[in-house]
Amino acid sequence: MTANHDRQLLSVLLVGVFAFVGSGSYAADPLPSWNDTATKAAIIDFVERVTREGSAGFVPPAERIATFDNDGTLWSEQPMYFQLAFAFDRVKAMAPQHPEWKDQQPFKGVLESDTKAVLAGGKKSLLEIVAATHSGMTSEDFERIVADWISTAKHPQTGRLYKDMVYQPMLELLAYLRANGFKTFIVSGGGIEFMRPWTEATYGIPPEQVVGSSVKTRFELRDGKPVIVRLPEIDFIDDKEGKPVGINSHVGRRPIFAAGNSDGDWQMLQYATIGRSPSFALIVHHTDDQREWAYDRDSHIGQLDQALDDATRQGWTVVDMKQDWKRIYPAQ
Amino acid sequence: MTANHDRQLLSVLLVGVFAFVGSGSYAADPLPSWNDTATKAAIIDFVERVTREGSAGFVPPAERIATFDNDGTLWSEQPMYFQLAFAFDRVKAMAPQHPEWKDQQPFKGVLESDTKAVLAGGKKSLLEIVAATHSGMTSEDFERIVADWISTAKHPQTGRLYKDMVYQPMLELLAYLRANGFKTFIVSGGGIEFMRPWTEATYGIPPEQVVGSSVKTRFELRDGKPVIVRLPEIDFIDDKEGKPVGINSHVGRRPIFAAGNSDGDWQMLQYATIGRSPSFALIVHHTDDQREWAYDRDSHIGQLDQALDDATRQGWTVVDMKQDWKRIYPAQ
Repeated sequence: MTANHDRQLLSVLLVGVFAFVGSGSYAADPLPSWNDTATKAAIIDFVERVTREGSAGFVPPAERIATFDNDGTLWSEQPMYFQLAFAFDRVKAMAPQHPEWKDQQPFKGVLESDTKAVLAGGKKSLLEIVAATHSGMTSEDFERIVADWISTAKHPQTGRLYKDMVYQPMLELLAYLRANGFKTFIVSGGGIEFMRPWTEATYGIPPEQVVGSSVKTRFELRDGKPVIVRLPEIDFIDDKEGKPVGINSHVGRRPIFAAGNSDGDWQMLQYATIGRSPSFALIVHHTDDQREWAYDRDSHIGQLDQALDDATRQGWTVVDMKQDWKRIYPAQ
Repeated sequence: MTANHDRQLLSVLLVGVFAFVGSGSYAADPLPSWNDTATKAAIIDFVERVTREGSAGFVPPAERIATFDNDGTLWSEQPMYFQLAFAFDRVKAMAPQHPEWKDQQPFKGVLESDTKAVLAGGKKSLLEIVAATHSGMTSEDFERIVADWISTAKHPQTGRLYKDMVYQPMLELLAYLRANGFKTFIVSGGGIEFMRPWTEATYGIPPEQVVGSSVKTRFELRDGKPVIVRLPEIDFIDDKEGKPVGINSHVGRRPIFAAGNSDGDWQMLQYATIGRSPSFALIVHHTDDQREWAYDRDSHIGQLDQALDDATRQGWTVVDMKQDWKRIYPAQ
């Protein structure tokens, strides 16, 4: 055995010891930011059941697929989806190159911070803004733009960086599932290339495990350099019925665990759970108007209505943020 | 420390020892079915360079993305793509439910094993056959149909199961890359849902790391059961310029290693290598008319022309199957 082999063996053993220590501390309390309520107990019970070898509920690691919505499930989404705040910031940054925007809605409204005027144009206006700010550049350039924004942009009400408005209890849940052999995916109505630049650092979820809405793209050699160009045309909307379609396309297996917070996640939760056991669906219910926002059935953003009704019928677990979560955001 | 913890520690240590033994035997010869030619040396040199910590060529594990074409790169593709043989077999199996097919091209040609008549209809005929055999069912049903076929269907000339016509040297290359921290993906013009049912057992590549062509799908509750229905409409063609687009969509990172065998892979090889170092492109050149098939520039299937010219310019590594491979298929 060479010295090199000795070193290899040593490092393998050390990794083993750290894994052991890690697993020991998880066993103590894998979800420290969750209060000791029925919700937490249900999650732990499910995870222990599917990982107990030889039990009827055992699920092999390869099939432990967990899918998470992003907006309102992993981070906040009020008073507007954070990606829309990004788009508005882009309009402002790009305005010097577009003098015509100052007289032209919906851009005029964005530049004058008149959100009401912007939203008056409905879906068409939003698509115009998305086309202007999310296409025309290469994927690499867009990645840089998003990475710059996410590392600096702050929420107007909390003063926190948007990326620090992720839910600490959900970060623990993601880590807990991965420590138990789950592969965690994001399945969001948000843009796939808007999320990928920061999901690995923020959630521990690598780009190839992010599913989202997308624009059409084209490959070309530009000045001899291979690039992917983002086109001003929607390719796929990863919302409602689109979520199971996106999962089938990107993952190719039905999840056994799915988490969402709105009617946009309803079909994903059905897909993960109906007719299969064991399986688990989690709905994050926004009930805390002190520490976050409280909204559900009549909300314009994150409407939770049909999925909430179905939760009772299907036996889905509903997180009451106010009751179930010890804290909302990570310590700073 | 409890007895349970002792057992956990023991199992971690045992896993460590096996990992060590495994890595030791790779170090002896990671590619035993490759002859000791410049091709094999180039592969090993590249892998050692990107994994050597502290060296200029070091690439962090998360960025070690390797993409492989399937037809002609991981398994044979003559005298017709194996997926087309599957489609023809499906036409025969479905014929009793379609009495009209016996008088109607291209189905008549398939039923009479008159491939020439089938191909006379060109692309339109092939799309008709694909629509009839690859859509209308749920994804789950299609998975079962493919799984049944792949476990029984044999190649008419070799008498081998199609799934045993994979290239032993490429299986070793996939395993060698993974042992060195690479994540391996298939990026094929073939159907994504045609490959996923068997790529994990055959190549060690799980469904979520398979990218391919696809039909449109729809989510629905059918008799209360959630299903994905395959529609008779092409959604995405994962070939030529489509391959970098498919990689960007499914992986979200540029590969640093790509392998193909035809002009359909040209853009993927460009995408992986041009303007970036270190990177590696491999072209499997079919030169062995004794043990496999010999074809390149004028072939109707797997035409290798522009990509072969570009290989010299770009410094891509060309596998000469006859010279570089000790064996073609796995021992039976």
